[in-house]
Parts: sequence; structure tokens; C-alpha cells
Amino acid sequence: MGNLLDQIHQPNDIKKIPEGQLPLLAKEIRRLILATTSKNGGHLASSLGTVELTMALHRCMNFPEDKLIWDVGHQSYTHKILTGRKEQFSTLRTYGGISGFPKRAESLCDAFDTGHSSTSVSVAAGMAKARDLRGTSERVVAVIGDGALSGGLAYEGLNNIGRFKSNLIIILNDNEMSISQNVGSMANYLGKVRMSSNYIDFKGNLEHVLSRSHFGERLVKGLKRTKDSIRQMIIPGEFFTELGMTYFGPLDGHDIALMERAFHVAEKIQGPVLLHVVTQKGKGYRYAEAEPSRFHGIDPFQISTGEQVKCVKKETFTSCFGRAVTELARKHSDVVAITAAMTSGTGLSRFQEEFPERFFDVGIAEEHAVTFAAGMAVSGLRPVVAVYSTFLQRAYDQIVHDVALGNLPVIFAIDRAGIVGSDGETHQGVFDIAYLSHIPNLTVMAPANGGELAAMLQFAYEAGGPVAIRYPRGSVGCERIMECGTQEIRHGKAEVLCKEKEIAILFVGPFYELALSVQELLHGSGYAASIINARFVAPFDRECVRELARTHSLLVTIEEGIKRGGFGEQVTSFVMDERLSMRVLNIALANKFFAQAEQQQLRKMCGLTKEAIFAKIEREMEA
Amino acid sequence: MGNLLDQIHQPNDIKKIPEGQLPLLAKEIRRLILATTSKNGGHLASSLGTVELTMALHRCMNFPEDKLIWDVGHQSYTHKILTGRKEQFSTLRTYGGISGFPKRAESLCDAFDTGHSSTSVSVAAGMAKARDLRGTSERVVAVIGDGALSGGLAYEGLNNIGRFKSNLIIILNDNEMSISQNVGSMANYLGKVRMSSNYIDFKGNLEHVLSRSHFGERLVKGLKRTKDSIRQMIIPGEFFTELGMTYFGPLDGHDIALMERAFHVAEKIQGPVLLHVVTQKGKGYRYAEAEPSRFHGIDPFQISTGEQVKCVKKETFTSCFGRAVTELARKHSDVVAITAAMTSGTGLSRFQEEFPERFFDVGIAEEHAVTFAAGMAVSGLRPVVAVYSTFLQRAYDQIVHDVALGNLPVIFAIDRAGIVGSDGETHQGVFDIAYLSHIPNLTVMAPANGGELAAMLQFAYEAGGPVAIRYPRGSVGCERIMECGTQEIRHGKAEVLCKEKEIAILFVGPFYELALSVQELLHGSGYAASIINARFVAPFDRECVRELARTHSLLVTIEEGIKRGGFGEQVTSFVMDERLSMRVLNIALANKFFAQAEQQQLRKMCGLTKEAIFAKIEREMEA
Repeated sequence: MGNLLDQIHQPNDIKKIPEGQLPLLAKEIRRLILATTSKNGGHLASSLGTVELTMALHRCMNFPEDKLIWDVGHQSYTHKILTGRKEQFSTLRTYGGISGFPKRAESLCDAFDTGHSSTSVSVAAGMAKARDLRGTSERVVAVIGDGALSGGLAYEGLNNIGRFKSNLIIILNDNEMSISQNVGSMANYLGKVRMSSNYIDFKGNLEHVLSRSHFGERLVKGLKRTKDSIRQMIIPGEFFTELGMTYFGPLDGHDIALMERAFHVAEKIQGPVLLHVVTQKGKGYRYAEAEPSRFHGIDPFQISTGEQVKCVKKETFTSCFGRAVTELARKHSDVVAITAAMTSGTGLSRFQEEFPERFFDVGIAEEHAVTFAAGMAVSGLRPVVAVYSTFLQRAYDQIVHDVALGNLPVIFAIDRAGIVGSDGETHQGVFDIAYLSHIPNLTVMAPANGGELAAMLQFAYEAGGPVAIRYPRGSVGCERIMECGTQEIRHGKAEVLCKEKEIAILFVGPFYELALSVQELLHGSGYAASIINARFVAPFDRECVRELARTHSLLVTIEEGIKRGGFGEQVTSFVMDERLSMRVLNIALANKFFAQAEQQQLRKMCGLTKEAIFAKIEREMEA
Repeated sequence: MGNLLDQIHQPNDIKKIPEGQLPLLAKEIRRLILATTSKNGGHLASSLGTVELTMALHRCMNFPEDKLIWDVGHQSYTHKILTGRKEQFSTLRTYGGISGFPKRAESLCDAFDTGHSSTSVSVAAGMAKARDLRGTSERVVAVIGDGALSGGLAYEGLNNIGRFKSNLIIILNDNEMSISQNVGSMANYLGKVRMSSNYIDFKGNLEHVLSRSHFGERLVKGLKRTKDSIRQMIIPGEFFTELGMTYFGPLDGHDIALMERAFHVAEKIQGPVLLHVVTQKGKGYRYAEAEPSRFHGIDPFQISTGEQVKCVKKETFTSCFGRAVTELARKHSDVVAITAAMTSGTGLSRFQEEFPERFFDVGIAEEHAVTFAAGMAVSGLRPVVAVYSTFLQRAYDQIVHDVALGNLPVIFAIDRAGIVGSDGETHQGVFDIAYLSHIPNLTVMAPANGGELAAMLQFAYEAGGPVAIRYPRGSVGCERIMECGTQEIRHGKAEVLCKEKEIAILFVGPFYELALSVQELLHGSGYAASIINARFVAPFDRECVRELARTHSLLVTIEEGIKRGGFGEQVTSFVMDERLSMRVLNIALANKFFAQAEQQQLRKMCGLTKEAIFAKIEREMEA
């Protein structure tokens, strides 16, 4: 690493670096980010794009007194490096290391924990209002990407801050894309603003800039008096002005000195300011500049070639889904697919290519995705909403109120269900069983492998009501797993794979291999064990459980989701209600948030291993 | 009822009424709405405001082919009267009668079931896109109030329809308020539009109007070529234009002929059109015109005086909360209150009066309410978010991601939890225990009476983490109930009210009276029963349950929420995990949506009566 970074040990150290050396420091920061993400994976392109913006903010703000909120948070690597975490940066996204997202527990300079999109304006509004009530004077700044502006929560925030008159600065980090390609009228609008106006040059023309703001509004008072809307001819960003903010921009987001000057102007203005900066995603690393989507969230790669290290392309649930949904659309013209800024992440790229007119990327707008699907379903289409488990949390009410209440045939393809790994707490898909399986009319399923996922999709298409199919991130597993999931799918029916007595193992999702291993261990201790693929979480196979109770003394449920409100509890409750004479042991995740670690590492820590499960069963049988 | 309504039997009959007689028909419709709501209660002011708008739409559209989506749906009474439900209208909001909201099951003319706010744009977008893919040509129209525009989902919808180019008409029903007073920059913006422009007079000046639209854009092409933004000087509603819609308005929403003409112009325009009509809430009934908020959702009243029939003002959980939170704010300057367009409904009027600078009505924006509270809490304040159970569903992810993950001290005061009655399926607060009690770090409580609610609020203030307190709509109950809830509140500890053995009744919420009655019945059959007030749903009192198991053979849980994922299941699961030798019987609601009926009627149907519970217990004891 270079010399300049050696001078950065703690917050605010960057202020000591001479202005002329800042471009060099930016280069060193980029080199460090590249070195780390190429080994650990991570959100490279966003963080490369905000190096100068972050440096400018750190030269203007005082940490930890001032509050900086990173929307989503995946662009915060430079912020971490500049706030005393340079040495630990190599541990990024690893167990016990530093998080890929802002974390209050990590540093006082991380003002708020983020991970999901579009929260920053509301958080900043709350902080600014709290400051005003307290009578202190720290600055509050939110940095939000143009992609995150498509989320309704961001709009709710913008709609409220104009009225509250608190001083705060919203920095719109406009890199012309969310995760893949940006969508929606807001994106078009920002494009128009970028195209129609020259970038503001604060160096030569600060007075002119001041005249554009409320701060200098005396200067334009004459104009305003004649006709209010003539102001719109002068100032771009009228949309934001209408929402009660003072708009500045667009500025070059890689010009540190310019942004510093703009920031100092903005902080003198009364009320909320929107500072529009334009950055390039992936800036400074040619492969990421060329393919920012591929380098958004990336697995370990070779810096010299930009190629991913693991080139063995394993079959994943995501790729199986992509193939199966495209196949379904070929057979049935009423199948449409909807995603929320996750086309490639959910495996829909092929569908998009083959059926562009039946494919809808609505941007980061999960609520709209679901209610839009409801509108389509009530009109006779069969929409498939493909979304990550953790993000579907945002549309809980839309699932209840717009889909389930009307019993509408919307299919939810829920990717990244269960433990996701390195993205940590904010991204684990561990709540979906709990928040979905109590919703009336909604069928919830989980495939044991890729083939079964395809079959479930076909089943869901024919079901006539809403169906959610949840499956994890990663590989569909080994050949042995493929032996299950082959029997015909019938509504609410489990698949009995191995019929013994004494102990029954009832698993949800891709746990056949695990169940077999546990069975082997149990066999070694003289116990026989049946194995059943639950298939349906809701409604689960009550008849099967009744039948098992006749010949088994213990039923073991296995699921990768939190225990509270999960599948196992549902089964336990049924066993109690029916007075079945069978004990139930629920293997599930503890009710807590799970920090980052490798998927397998986390599973081990959570007791989802054959040894841990075997030990629990043995204890249960001996009790 | 008058003569003209006699000619209205089925959809489209209104087209036969001569134009000159329409004002008279409007009068008759208003009289019918008044007669019914004065007896049954209902959403009077909104429905009175949209009589002419609905009539105009029914004269232009063909039902049921065309699709009309009412946002929220409480303004749909005229629509119901005009679509074959005039005779049944007297059964509005009663058990087995017609719903206060659009219901597909009721009529083919109700295109979508609504109840929650801000869904209509997304639903209409889905329907329009489905139509385009099918190649049919029905019209799709959404009617959305200005209040509903503060919800993020509406913005997500607007942000998406501009791009899709489908023909659809969004009618912005601007009555200058949501439920109480409108808030946010959008409201200010609409006010500005109304003020700055003369209402469009379609009668005299249709050509001029056409020149304002994309349809007539050849006429303004010259202007546009010189400077795009000069268009903004001509057309108000630039905000919507920036989002890719053609804007028309504002129009007088009580001028039927004008609206008909505007509609016919709008439907010829390619792509989405926003038709801005200005209506008066409560129009035609002087008491409702004067106090539209009071007549938003109203209990039975006397038409001649506007006074409510039940003048005996009972103490309710809502009023207790209002007093307690104001008292808390007096003691602690860090207490602030937040609501989402429900100031009076949640009992916060007094707080607002006494602490205007610490009170925040964010409009219909539950997600923002929660995340805004998180921003305040992380800055050292103690925000109390007061919201109805059913609407808090919209902020599930914000509770998980923005509040619980950071373990921030936000207090959720959840009103209308459990069965709400006449508002029906979309408003029942039956899911909150299921969707809240699995969230890590979140404490969930339920008071047995008003005094305990106040004590729980004080407890929550001191708790240091997030706490949800859920309580039902209506009276805090009789004096007997006041005997419980008096012991000091300790974290996770239940209140043992009566210590016997054999049977234990563990209730959540205001069920002491019910528990006592069941106890009496059991006594008559020779059984002794303990009574315990659970107080904490999560974490519930494990030690207490262990203790009960030592001396009781049956534990009966009672809660007003769905069984699946509820309190009872949690207790059952614990009893199984701990191998306690005690049976558990869960009294809770079935997993389904509950239609409208009186609260007590519904409770009876759900088995929440002493007789039904006693019978279940007896069966259990005899088994």
C-alpha cells in the first residue's frame, strides 16, 4: 500500500492530507478496495464509484459528531477505511471481521445500520429533528443512490422533510443505475436533468450557483414575483424543488474540490438540500467500469483479468429457477415475470431476453412489484414475482392485503431464503417462513432440489391461488439429493422417502443429504429413522404427521429459518392439538439476527450439521 | 327515496337519466347514503364528496367490462348504489350485508378488493398491462385521494406507469385532506397547483385544453423546440408530467358534464393520464362539510343534528393511551409521538395540542413513520409510534431492519389489535402477534385494561429496546377487569391473578372478565382453575409456565389473534421443548380473513365466549 494511506489512522485524518495529494490517496484507496474484494468478494462497483465523494465528505464533516447515513450501505468501504478500519479492512465480510455494511457496533462513525434500500432519508429526517429538539448543531447527511429513489420509502421521506424545515443534506449519488439497469420515470427524469444542464462549475461561478438556491433567493426575487414557474427554466431538479428542497447540481462526483465547495454552500442553506452528484460506478477499475452490474456484488476475482476465481459453474437454485420459469412461459402465454432490480440475481436474464414484453423490472420497489402482480393476476395473467427473501419483507402487507385476501394466483419465487452468508444480518432470509406461513390462502413450499423447484413452479401455475416457493442461495447439491423430489406433487402432501419406525425426520428444503447422514449416524446407535421431504410448509401434510405418530415415538423437523413461528412450531402445535403420542424435536435457527460468515460456517454454528442434529436426537431418545 | 333512483337497477342505468336531472339524482344518492350511514355508521364524508365524480365515471365507462379501482375504497358508496346494490345498501357494514369497501365477491363491477391505502395505481398498472398483453380494449381507471398520494406505494406505481406507456387514467381526487389534515410536500404542492391556476373550463375552451396535452402536442411543438421547460409555464402539475404522465386539471369535481368531457378527452390520449379533480369532502351535508374529519368514519348519528347517537362516552383503550402518552411526555422531554394520518383515531389529539413541536403526523406513510422513529431513537429520543394493527403490516420490514436490528428504543402503540368489526377483512388487526413476536429484540406486550396500558407505556419507556404494546378497539371494560393489571410490571413476567391447580387460564389482553366467567363455569363442573394475565407475548414468562406445569394438567391460552404463529403456539412449543407434563389448549382465531360484523358478534362466531371456551376445556379434560 502507498504512503498516503499510512497517514490515515483515525477519523478526520484525511483533513491533514494536502489537497494536491488527494487524487493519489484516492488511487491508494481504490487499490486497497480492489485487493480486499478480489479476495473476499463484496460490493466493488458502488464503492469504487464513491471514493471521491466520501473523501470530500470526510474533509467537510467532523466524525463522529456529524451524522452520515449511507443508503443501502454497500458503498461505504471508503468510509470504513477513513474511520480507523483500514487495518481490519482485509477481514471485510468474513466471520468476526468487519461488515460489508455500516454497523454502529463497529464504529461511532457509522451512524445507522443499513443493508436494505431507501431508508436513509427517513433516518436522516429523524436525526435532524432529534438534533433540533435537543438544540445541538451536528450536521446530518444522507447519501442515496438514484436506484434507491425508486423505493417508496425514500419518497415518503422526501415528502416529509420539505415540511419539517430541518437542516439536512441529501446527497443524490447518481450513477445512472441501481443494481442492474435503472428503471422508472424518476430515472428518465434524472437522465433529462443530466442531459439538459451543464454540470455546475463551482470554481468559477459560485455566485451564479448561490443565485440558484433559496440562500440566494433575494437575487431571483424579481423573477419569482413575475412568474413563479419561470424559476423552473433556470433550475433543473424541479421535481425536488416541488418537494420543498433546495436543489444543487448536477456536480461531477469525482471532483473532490468542487464537492467540498458545494457542501460548504449547501450547509449554509436553511432547510433540506438535495445535492445531486454524478458518479461512475466501478470508477478506476476498467473491468468494473465496463461491466458495473457484474461487479456490483461479486465473488472473489482475479484483479488482472476481472475473471471470477471459482470458474466451476455449479448448478444453483437460481439458475434452475431461471430455466424453469422460462420453460413455463414457453408453454403458457399468460406467464409473466416481475422483479425488483434483481434481474440477474434472481436468474431472470434469460426470461427477459426471450420474453421482453412479458418481463417487468420495476426497480427497487418490492411493494409495487407485488401489487402490480396482483393487478395482473386479477386480470387473468399468472405473474411470477422473483425476489430475495429479505427484500420480500417489504411487501408483507401487499401479500396479505392485495394478493392473499383476493386469493389471487400470484407465484412468489423467493430466492436467498435461509442463511445467505457474507452479507450478514440485513440480508439473511431467515424470517420468510414465519411471516408467510400464517397468511390465509397462501401456500408456502420449499423444494429439496432443482428438479423439484421446477415441478413446484408447474404446480404453482396450476394451483389457482397464491403460492410462495422459497429456496436458498447456492448450489442445488450433489447427485444423492437428486434422488428425492421425484414423486408427483399433490397439494399439501409430503414426500415419504424412507419408511422406518421409531424416529421420523421431516425436512423443509434441500436437506435430504443431511437427513440421510443423520439416519446413518442413528443407525449406528441402533435407531431406525424414516425420512420425509415436507414440500409444503403451509398447509403442511397433517395426514402424514398423524400416520407417523402411529409408528414413531419422535418426529424431528429440520428447517433453515427461525424457530419462532416456523414450520416446526406449526407441527408441534398440531401434534399437541391432536393429542398424538409422539414427541417433536424442532431443528431450526435461534430467534436472533445472524452476522456475516460463510454459509457453511453459519450453518455449523447454528447446529445444522449431522453431528449436532444426531446429538440432539440421541439426547431426546434417552430422556 | 326519490323517483330517479327508482330507475337505477343495474350497472349503466345512469346513462338513461337525462343530463338535466343528474343534480337531482345526486341529491337522492346523498340522501340514501346519509340515511344508511346515520344508522350503520360508515365512511360518510369521502362518499359524499365523490357522488358527482362517480356519476360522471358511470356515464362514461361500461361496467363490468371497464375496470374502476377505488383507492382505499371508502369512497365507493355511490358506485355500489349505481351497480345493482341500491336495495341492499341498508345492510352496509353489517354481518352478511354489503361491505363498506369494494369486494369482488359482491359485484363484477368491483374490480379489486381494497381497504388499505395507496394500492390503486399499481393495481391499475397491472390491469392495463394485462389488457395490453391480451389485446383487449377495456378502460382502466384508478381513483386516488390526495391523502393516499403520501404513501410510498402510490409513488412506486406512478414512477413505473410513465415508462410502460399503457393507457390508463389516474383520477386524483383532491379534497385537500387525507383522514384528518393532509401533510407533506405533496399536499403543499397540490395546494399550489390549485391556487396558481384557474380551474379548467372544458365547456368553453376545449381546444385550449387539448393544446395542453400530449394529444395536442403538435400545437405546442414550436414552443417545446425552443425550450422544453417553457412548457412548465403553461401546464400546472409539472410534478406528474415529470413522472411521464399527461396532466389535466384541476377540474371542479362536482361538475358532472365537465368531468364527462374531460374523461372523453383523457381516454383518447396515449399513455397514462392524471386527471386532477377537486372535490369537497362531506359535500351536501352541512355538518360533514363543516367537520369532514369527524365524519370520515363515523358511528351512527342523528341526521338533523349531526350528533352521534351513543353519547355515553365510554373509556376506551385509545383514550387511555392518549392520556398516558401525554402524561409520559410531561415527565420526560425526550418522548415524541408519531402517527400516520391517524391523530384522533389513535388518541393523540391531546398530545398534539400540548406538545405540537414533539408531535409528527407523517401522513399515510407507515414505513416512513417507523424509520423516521428509528432515526430519532438512535439520536436519543424516545419515539412512540401510534398506528392501527392492520396498517402497521406495511412497516414490517422497517420494524425488523431499521428498529429491531439496531435494538432501538422505539415504542409501538398498536391500536385496533384483534377484531375491529364493521370495517371487515381489510381492517381486522388479527396478524400482529404472528408478524411481530418472531422479531428478535422486540418485546411484545398486551394490557388487560387501561391502567395496565399506562403502566406498560411507562415500562416501555424504561426498557431501552423496542417494545410493541397491542390493544383492541373499544371500551376498556367493566370494573371487575380493573382488578387485574395492578402488580408491578417486570420484563417477561406474567401476572398471576388466581392460584389454583388442575387448569390454568393464561390470557393475552383484556380477557380477565372472560377468564373469570370460564373459571366459574369450570367450578360448577368441579374443576379448579388458576388465572394468569400473560402481559408479555414475547418474551413470554417461561418460568411461570414451568411452575404451572408442576401443579396443573391443562394450560389454556386465550388471545384475540390468529392461532398460527400466535402466542398459544409459542407456549405449546415451549411445553413440548421442555417436556413438561401438561396439556395445552390454544384458544385463538382460525387462520382466515374475517368479514364485517359487530365486534361482539364476531367474537362469538370465533368461539371467544365463556360457553365455547368452557365446552372446549371440558372436552379436553374428559379426553
